Amino acid sequence: MSNKSYSLEELAQVAMGEIAGDSQLQITGFAPLETAGEGDISFLVKASEVEKLTDFKGSAVIVPVDITEAAVPLIRVKDPYLASARIHGLLLEKPFVASGVHPQACVGENTAVPEQISVAAFVSIGERVKLGERITMESGVVLGDDVEVGDDVLLKANVSIANGCKLGKRVIIQPGTVIGSDGYGYATDDRGFHTKRPQVGIVQIDDDVEIGANCCVDRAAYGVTHIKSGSKIDNLVQIAHNVVVGENSLIVSQVGISGSTTLGRNVVLGGQVGVTGHINLGDGVMVGAQSGVHNNQKPGAKIGGSPALPIKNYVRAAIQHGKLPEMARDLRKLKKEVAELKSKN
Amino acid sequence: MSNKSYSLEELAQVAMGEIAGDSQLQITGFAPLETAGEGDISFLVKASEVEKLTDFKGSAVIVPVDITEAAVPLIRVKDPYLASARIHGLLLEKPFVASGVHPQACVGENTAVPEQISVAAFVSIGERVKLGERITMESGVVLGDDVEVGDDVLLKANVSIANGCKLGKRVIIQPGTVIGSDGYGYATDDRGFHTKRPQVGIVQIDDDVEIGANCCVDRAAYGVTHIKSGSKIDNLVQIAHNVVVGENSLIVSQVGISGSTTLGRNVVLGGQVGVTGHINLGDGVMVGAQSGVHNNQKPGAKIGGSPALPIKNYVRAAIQHGKLPEMARDLRKLKKEVAELKSKN
Amino acid sequence: MSNKSYSLEELAQVAMGEIAGDSQLQITGFAPLETAGEGDISFLVKASEVEKLTDFKGSAVIVPVDITEAAVPLIRVKDPYLASARIHGLLLEKPFVASGVHPQACVGENTAVPEQISVAAFVSIGERVKLGERITMESGVVLGDDVEVGDDVLLKANVSIANGCKLGKRVIIQPGTVIGSDGYGYATDDRGFHTKRPQVGIVQIDDDVEIGANCCVDRAAYGVTHIKSGSKIDNLVQIAHNVVVGENSLIVSQVGISGSTTLGRNVVLGGQVGVTGHINLGDGVMVGAQSGVHNNQKPGAKIGGSPALPIKNYVRAAIQHGKLPEMARDLRKLKKEVAELKSKN
Repeated sequence: MSNKSYSLEELAQVAMGEIAGDSQLQITGFAPLETAGEGDISFLVKASEVEKLTDFKGSAVIVPVDITEAAVPLIRVKDPYLASARIHGLLLEKPFVASGVHPQACVGENTAVPEQISVAAFVSIGERVKLGERITMESGVVLGDDVEVGDDVLLKANVSIANGCKLGKRVIIQPGTVIGSDGYGYATDDRGFHTKRPQVGIVQIDDDVEIGANCCVDRAAYGVTHIKSGSKIDNLVQIAHNVVVGENSLIVSQVGISGSTTLGRNVVLGGQVGVTGHINLGDGVMVGAQSGVHNNQKPGAKIGGSPALPIKNYVRAAIQHGKLPEMARDLRKLKKEVAELKSKN
Repeated sequence: MSNKSYSLEELAQVAMGEIAGDSQLQITGFAPLETAGEGDISFLVKASEVEKLTDFKGSAVIVPVDITEAAVPLIRVKDPYLASARIHGLLLEKPFVASGVHPQACVGENTAVPEQISVAAFVSIGERVKLGERITMESGVVLGDDVEVGDDVLLKANVSIANGCKLGKRVIIQPGTVIGSDGYGYATDDRGFHTKRPQVGIVQIDDDVEIGANCCVDRAAYGVTHIKSGSKIDNLVQIAHNVVVGENSLIVSQVGISGSTTLGRNVVLGGQVGVTGHINLGDGVMVGAQSGVHNNQKPGAKIGGSPALPIKNYVRAAIQHGKLPEMARDLRKLKKEVAELKSKN
Repeated sequence: MSNKSYSLEELAQVAMGEIAGDSQLQITGFAPLETAGEGDISFLVKASEVEKLTDFKGSAVIVPVDITEAAVPLIRVKDPYLASARIHGLLLEKPFVASGVHPQACVGENTAVPEQISVAAFVSIGERVKLGERITMESGVVLGDDVEVGDDVLLKANVSIANGCKLGKRVIIQPGTVIGSDGYGYATDDRGFHTKRPQVGIVQIDDDVEIGANCCVDRAAYGVTHIKSGSKIDNLVQIAHNVVVGENSLIVSQVGISGSTTLGRNVVLGGQVGVTGHINLGDGVMVGAQSGVHNNQKPGAKIGGSPALPIKNYVRAAIQHGKLPEMARDLRKLKKEVAELKSKN
């Protein structure tokens, strides 16, 4: 996958690690321990699994610092999982190749297209769109009018970014995701008819955010639905109008966040979590999968269940929940026994 | 966002409200209290928040009838939330501008295209499609053969409407939504192989329905999957084959409704609710977020939890659920005490 | 819907059934009992519902073997539900009509296009793609580079298949589904910043798999995310990187399966189920709707709830859960009574 070659020294620098072995050894690829071959570097997360290196066929391994030497050249690091991500990323890096705008793409009036861009067939770009350098748009991407897209953004197949929404630098959006759909807001009259509340805000997505496939991020009613820098969102996630997602948060697949809720920095929401509207989750809050969050959460809170409890209570309650039939039986028996005791007294 | 100007009198008429102040004052825009400026009208939901008007920079405010006067012209109404939706909608209203069919769109045989239409690039319209007046289709919309679309419909980017499906007037569909995918129906043989049951029905969507982004509404096995007039559906909702959604129902994000289930009028399903197949939810049923509904529900029932209970029971049970570890401890203690008492008797 | 005509004898053969009546009777269509007309065959699942045949207006009925005769010609079979699926499928079968590649579609270099293909407008096919015979691609389909698609595959509107992914024969994918989006994998540093782990594997989908609308199947980090033959997946399902779905499994709408989890053959996951990562569900495991599965499951296990319990325990615990407020009351009363008894002793 990569033809470019790096010395072990260069890779160790990227990973802030120390070399044990030949620092000028040339590495051309990255692979798991089991499948690595000539020229490949691999990684080992736990020192206790060092015997996995016995049959290793590759050229070098990223290991935890506890491992000081082996039969193979090493890059010793504090966090091999992180170091391997950086080194693998570097080995895959390719210079941006601008294919320009495909003749079967469509660009609106008053939109200036930079030379360094790759726009596939059947991409539709609106009017007055502001485009940074080195943007890639796969086929079927739709940008509305007045959209802004920063440098080095990657928009995959069939992504749509509606009017006025803003994307920072290095944003990646997986296929099928919708940015800037109308928020879900209606006012209901006496007879039960619903009148749509106009949704005139935008979505702003800051630098280094990645959003998965087939997600929805609704535009604000007024103002901004805001995904702050470095946050990573999995597939099929729903983010309602006026939500704020703090920096470097992780939102796993199929989560739904209701309107006007604010998440702090480094919040983690497990898969299929639901968060009610108009609440605040503080920095570093962690929510277990399938939980339902209905109340404000202090920074660092760890919660689970629906409705969510502090995680320890949740786990204990879940264990007892499975024993409810026994508890009910015990309770019935006790009632009988107590009644008998009372009758004897 | 709006250049047209309306007198306070005209706006009061739309909102069925009374004016306190200059009825000929001209209003050109709508904004929240905090950001309103010259020419803007704003709104205040609760009379108790009247002090919010102190620093108001706009030109007029929609207020509850309890507020009789203020330093700023007022429209006094029963329901400011509803009145502001109507007035904001009016201020944003623009005459339909027909851009016609984009030269890079594609229209099938025997499909008559009215003059009053806006079809963007890379829209694909099938054969024998019936199109009303003033329809807007954004880029990437796909209409299958024999589709029918009513007047004033708005289909956003990458929406697909499969063969034979019918949309009423003023329907709005947010980007990425799929109407008329095959229902999930298979027959399984002795060896565990599944044979697809043909899905030959359609989807019918009545007037004034709005459907969110990346939703799925499956076509009926036979007959019709039916979304009745005025219902509003949020993002990422799954509606299975042969479901009927009654008039003016509200279905919040990530809900799933299984096959052949019928919802009455003005049903409300909270986010991430699951409804089993072949049941009926009566008019006005309300279901709390993340609930699982397995049984028929009488009109007006309010339920919550999975499996769902009457809402009061659900709330009480949820509170006790959090106390299960204490209950288990109490129960163990009681068992010991009762055993001691018995041994003494 | 079908103009071709089959004799009752031909249909009985497909359904492995026996005829009661005129074996040369010609059948041209399929319809439910209530709406069948001249030339239509219908079906009856339960012998006990035989009185439904009284007003039947069609020409023949598929019935369970227990029904030996009726006023109408019969095909008697072991499983009318399965037999009717096969017969209906046959009646709808049409010879593949190759429309070729639409002039407004786009095919990359080094991709050979077979004559027997139907590629709609605004389909984008990458470079070096391998295409089987009789493939249908609806408008808006996007195939990345190096994709492989087997014979008789149907890709509906706006489906995207990313670089390198492989589809077997007779695969059907409903609109809007994304195959080969990047897996959700990041490594986090001391300061809370996330580095993307490159996702360099593929998705492999074997023969006869059907996938619903707006689903996401992520590519493997390394190696293969694998959906094995005959599995049927409903709408809005999330399948994470390196998941393996065994043969003939059924995955109902809005399910999420986390990374590196393996499902055996004929596993059934109810709607909105969540399955954690790195676990194994054995052959034939059945999981009730909305469950959360956190542990390995033995073949044939039937489980429900979140966290999941054996299904009988789940049902019993759910019943007691609804009675928790009563249990708490009983417990309080018992505590008081026992305290009184103790004070008397």
